[in-house]
Amino acid sequence: MSFSLGRLFKITVFGESHGFGVGVVVDGCPAGLRLSESDVQVELERRRPKDSITSTSRREVDKVRILSGVFNGFTTGAPICMLIPNEDVRSDYYELIKNIPRPGHADYVARIKYGGYNDYRGGGIFSGRITAAIVAAGAVALKLLRHVGVKVLAHTVNIGGVEVEGLDTNDIDKLEKAVEESPVGCADPKKSEEMLRVITEVALRGDSVGGIAEVLIHNVPPGIGEPLFDTLEGDLAKAFFAIPGVKGVEFGVGFKAASMLGSQYNDQLVVVGGRVVTLTNNCGGVQGGISNGMPIVCRVVFRPPSSIKIPQRSVDLSRLEEVEVRLNGRFDPCILPRALPVLKSVAAIVLVDHLIISQVIPRVLR
Amino acid sequence: MSFSLGRLFKITVFGESHGFGVGVVVDGCPAGLRLSESDVQVELERRRPKDSITSTSRREVDKVRILSGVFNGFTTGAPICMLIPNEDVRSDYYELIKNIPRPGHADYVARIKYGGYNDYRGGGIFSGRITAAIVAAGAVALKLLRHVGVKVLAHTVNIGGVEVEGLDTNDIDKLEKAVEESPVGCADPKKSEEMLRVITEVALRGDSVGGIAEVLIHNVPPGIGEPLFDTLEGDLAKAFFAIPGVKGVEFGVGFKAASMLGSQYNDQLVVVGGRVVTLTNNCGGVQGGISNGMPIVCRVVFRPPSSIKIPQRSVDLSRLEEVEVRLNGRFDPCILPRALPVLKSVAAIVLVDHLIISQVIPRVLR
Amino acid sequence: MSFSLGRLFKITVFGESHGFGVGVVVDGCPAGLRLSESDVQVELERRRPKDSITSTSRREVDKVRILSGVFNGFTTGAPICMLIPNEDVRSDYYELIKNIPRPGHADYVARIKYGGYNDYRGGGIFSGRITAAIVAAGAVALKLLRHVGVKVLAHTVNIGGVEVEGLDTNDIDKLEKAVEESPVGCADPKKSEEMLRVITEVALRGDSVGGIAEVLIHNVPPGIGEPLFDTLEGDLAKAFFAIPGVKGVEFGVGFKAASMLGSQYNDQLVVVGGRVVTLTNNCGGVQGGISNGMPIVCRVVFRPPSSIKIPQRSVDLSRLEEVEVRLNGRFDPCILPRALPVLKSVAAIVLVDHLIISQVIPRVLR
Amino acid sequence: MSFSLGRLFKITVFGESHGFGVGVVVDGCPAGLRLSESDVQVELERRRPKDSITSTSRREVDKVRILSGVFNGFTTGAPICMLIPNEDVRSDYYELIKNIPRPGHADYVARIKYGGYNDYRGGGIFSGRITAAIVAAGAVALKLLRHVGVKVLAHTVNIGGVEVEGLDTNDIDKLEKAVEESPVGCADPKKSEEMLRVITEVALRGDSVGGIAEVLIHNVPPGIGEPLFDTLEGDLAKAFFAIPGVKGVEFGVGFKAASMLGSQYNDQLVVVGGRVVTLTNNCGGVQGGISNGMPIVCRVVFRPPSSIKIPQRSVDLSRLEEVEVRLNGRFDPCILPRALPVLKSVAAIVLVDHLIISQVIPRVLR
Repeated sequence: MSFSLGRLFKITVFGESHGFGVGVVVDGCPAGLRLSESDVQVELERRRPKDSITSTSRREVDKVRILSGVFNGFTTGAPICMLIPNEDVRSDYYELIKNIPRPGHADYVARIKYGGYNDYRGGGIFSGRITAAIVAAGAVALKLLRHVGVKVLAHTVNIGGVEVEGLDTNDIDKLEKAVEESPVGCADPKKSEEMLRVITEVALRGDSVGGIAEVLIHNVPPGIGEPLFDTLEGDLAKAFFAIPGVKGVEFGVGFKAASMLGSQYNDQLVVVGGRVVTLTNNCGGVQGGISNGMPIVCRVVFRPPSSIKIPQRSVDLSRLEEVEVRLNGRFDPCILPRALPVLKSVAAIVLVDHLIISQVIPRVLR
Repeated sequence: MSFSLGRLFKITVFGESHGFGVGVVVDGCPAGLRLSESDVQVELERRRPKDSITSTSRREVDKVRILSGVFNGFTTGAPICMLIPNEDVRSDYYELIKNIPRPGHADYVARIKYGGYNDYRGGGIFSGRITAAIVAAGAVALKLLRHVGVKVLAHTVNIGGVEVEGLDTNDIDKLEKAVEESPVGCADPKKSEEMLRVITEVALRGDSVGGIAEVLIHNVPPGIGEPLFDTLEGDLAKAFFAIPGVKGVEFGVGFKAASMLGSQYNDQLVVVGGRVVTLTNNCGGVQGGISNGMPIVCRVVFRPPSSIKIPQRSVDLSRLEEVEVRLNGRFDPCILPRALPVLKSVAAIVLVDHLIISQVIPRVLR
Repeated sequence: MSFSLGRLFKITVFGESHGFGVGVVVDGCPAGLRLSESDVQVELERRRPKDSITSTSRREVDKVRILSGVFNGFTTGAPICMLIPNEDVRSDYYELIKNIPRPGHADYVARIKYGGYNDYRGGGIFSGRITAAIVAAGAVALKLLRHVGVKVLAHTVNIGGVEVEGLDTNDIDKLEKAVEESPVGCADPKKSEEMLRVITEVALRGDSVGGIAEVLIHNVPPGIGEPLFDTLEGDLAKAFFAIPGVKGVEFGVGFKAASMLGSQYNDQLVVVGGRVVTLTNNCGGVQGGISNGMPIVCRVVFRPPSSIKIPQRSVDLSRLEEVEVRLNGRFDPCILPRALPVLKSVAAIVLVDHLIISQVIPRVLR
Repeated sequence: MSFSLGRLFKITVFGESHGFGVGVVVDGCPAGLRLSESDVQVELERRRPKDSITSTSRREVDKVRILSGVFNGFTTGAPICMLIPNEDVRSDYYELIKNIPRPGHADYVARIKYGGYNDYRGGGIFSGRITAAIVAAGAVALKLLRHVGVKVLAHTVNIGGVEVEGLDTNDIDKLEKAVEESPVGCADPKKSEEMLRVITEVALRGDSVGGIAEVLIHNVPPGIGEPLFDTLEGDLAKAFFAIPGVKGVEFGVGFKAASMLGSQYNDQLVVVGGRVVTLTNNCGGVQGGISNGMPIVCRVVFRPPSSIKIPQRSVDLSRLEEVEVRLNGRFDPCILPRALPVLKSVAAIVLVDHLIISQVIPRVLR
């Protein structure tokens, strides 16, 4: 149940941080999509740390292998299994703390839920490592979206309180270029520098910092989403919450709506070039759980990474005694830069599922 | 697909604003729960407008009838169908605007998605009316939660920017009493007055206003939630987004986490009375998608209601011509007060499903 | 979970034999289907006993009411709830035997599974009464199939060992006419008479008799079915087993295949009129779980009805003592004649779900 | 959607006959089950051809590798991915016939369904090879069943019309021993010899032959199964139909029920040793879709294998011209002996899912 997402386009994730590796089975991909390992590899590269400041984490080579579902360079309609073996793993360290949950981590709940049988090394299934599998599945989804002209972008809009404002998000290709050039995935060059400075300072203190990413989806036709419960917002939000560190999701102006009046918030309709559009996009492209043809805009907040070098209080569960924990290792001071391709992937996976259900993407591509 | 929620405890909603009524089938309710129509009725009453200031909407009698699944006063294990007939319906008005989508409403997307066949009267399935069915299902879920000692509360923390701060949420029973006494469902009496003033002013201008509600869930045992994808946060968020007007969901400190350091955010573990607890609850009781035994805290933002009396721009879709819309009728200037029981219900439904999956709630109550 | 069937076209059944009535929610019906209560009524009539010989069961009026999902004579895309109230119910009788499970009935397992809370009157949810709800949903599915030219027929091929052989099933319309004319739903007039004689004799002795029905589905395009697990055969079989009394399902030559050689069984391919067809149809129109364009043929065996007037041994569960049971009431000596519309409905429901998944039936009919 | 089976215990299969190999992800396995590759290997061995008479198929080494979900010798609660690489693959042959569907095979429907993109080599996903993945998942399920004392056995009861009758199936362990000793998996030594003779003759002629297997499940507690739709019979049947070659499933006396009277068929209840049992087991241990505590008995018919050396008619789809096909290779003349472990696995997988849903198997084994 729990490691699968989707109805007609369904992914099933497996693997652990310090085991053989991670992987994913993509079931329901239409036949006839040109797909190679390098299509997936290119997305996995985006997930790797860009430089040694924003991320000091392990050098994951993340070499993907497609085991099934592709024949003569095209998807066959059968499940696509992709494997990404682990490398550069050091597990001894975790033995020392196996009874001492790291504050902010899932160590404690995992021990309770799985009766102590969980693979605690590197966080096991709760590690950010598992997102490599999601990105691999996302690479397939992104290729499918290109077939129907849908574009997805994720960019950093806030790190440690440094917030991007007034960004023009109309030209998604131009925006993407700016995002790729920034070490923190921020399209505003000045804010990008500020963010980098915040991360550097935080990292030096052995601390970490949170942030907010925005996901933009352009060219989704109106009418996508299945109310009452399988809304576009609900399905996107649910999927985003599977990414380690996500603690909130909002659409359009989001929480700012609390202070707004209906007369300010309502997106009024006009005709532009023979097409119905809205003057504003406060709703973020989704009304009643259904796309309205305007860009889909959502923001996702990430808590600061749990692993910090500053001493913290915890409990040795084997003796039920309070102890002090001092973590050592290679930690990301801020997850935002590396989370962007994961967000993009998750959004693409959810979108493709909905576009197949809505019969916008056919079962066989010709 | 779309009108069902849940896996082992599953609800299926049906009905429209101006049709026969609304209803719900609750499938998977354990046998042996004492249940009567008055158990459901009492929750439905909470959803009715409390006074003529916060809500001028129609006088829904909301008399529920249980059609199946209950025998000799106890649930049988069979699906429970509950009907809530509509009354006090005036539909003529909607004929006049059937080609003119109301700004902010789902009128436009519904027309596109369902090819114009949708029942547009009163918003059809997109009406807040449908939440009566959710509350009926929630009444069953809330009774089940009582069996295992879980308590759920929803209260208003922000209306139009008037924000509650520093509220003590430890005593959930006391809090509930304060919430019930407030016409806007706000536990802080001073803020409650301010909020009421905001709503009154807004209503006088024919406008509407947004707000934020907080949902508290106490006594959930640690270990509930099914990562990777069926997280407690993800399932709650997805379900909340089914409520008309919801545009964002956050857990614990939520979006504030963006400006926090890991050393501030991490909930450190200590032993209190032989039990492992956290010093803070910034994560809102959920880590890695799994409950950690602390109170679950989430906040949900509602956009200002779409229906306002102020003239707005729209398009007559039959002629593709821009027009001005002036809505008339009985509109809620702020949805928060009436949304609270819906939030509580949705949270209860999601929780019960997870507690059955986790085998905390048995299949037969004894 | 359990009272729902289907993925994109999903039905949820509720109700009991001696409660308010039975009903069904059909979720995922495409918008734009012309649908009225009389469309459903006509199928419900087929389920009613044809005469007093083959069935002495209660005079169910089975008047359906559509509560939602239809507007201006067309489906809206919203869930369609249909209610069929019970009438002519006598429940006192059941009080007398509430601790004594009737042999062959689900009384015993129901008591165990639901801890004694189940509604045992008239068999509760295990009554054939519940099939009225399935037939109502089937009426919607059958109308959808007509849009794409698919025809479904169920006919009796064996009652008490009287077996139909060598029937020409190519002309499904002609066959249907013959079936409708037979009091036992058998297209072979001579066998029909024999079957009627068997039933009459059995009924006189207060006994009951089993039988086999064949379901034919014509004009299903090739390529329908979702291996590995959601095969057309598997989904049809699973759905048929929900019908009370079904104990076996086979496709094509079915169990006879055990004695056949590959050279006899294999359906060889030829070209007829520019179309690929098979010389024989031993596989029953499904290969590898996928339709091959030939008629789908399956047979379903029904056990003799459990309720007989002949004394039987049972156990008084309140005292764990063996007792003799003598049932009295209005029993069907053979369920086949009344099961045919149910089989047809179930097949149609499964087919429609698959045809929507395969994008043969669109989400909006124009 | 289609390559997954189960709700709380869910398997997702992938792989092809002539690709990298086959594999399976088992999601929802309770934590705390002792599991090693050799536990799986031992079941895979049962699937291998026993001798050169009953099977001339390729020497599949079927060496399984567990990639995830097991830590320190125990399952962790995380998805278990198992890989079985292909060996001894010769694919050139298939290029020659890629436009000519083999009669009886899924070649034609696969081409239609997947627009010609399917991997046709060795039947691709329609190959019996995929059942190795099912058996690997079954090995996990069988270990779980042992924890709760449930035993599953599959044995051959008919090959080419040679039928086993009057077999005592009460002692399942003794039966299993007899089955293992027979080259055709038949517990009756005399019939086993006859069956072997039939297979040998058929093989010499380059032909194939069908058969029937019986699946026995002992010690299932009463009350398992989720009516209306997720019945034990329906879920088992659906899963069996995923096995290549299955064309019919029946429970208890199955199709023989057509000729029986209610007074013969009804399983009358008596008390034996303080326990309620039935005098007969005509229903095969399932009533109303729910286990009644008696042995579950079902029979599954397999068509004769499609691949035969005798010339057959087919169509060259590239030219739409009729041709004669002569297949050459290593074919199983009868699939029964090798299908038995697959049937056992499938039954175990379905049972475990139901036993978790019924809370008989806990989420963590202690």
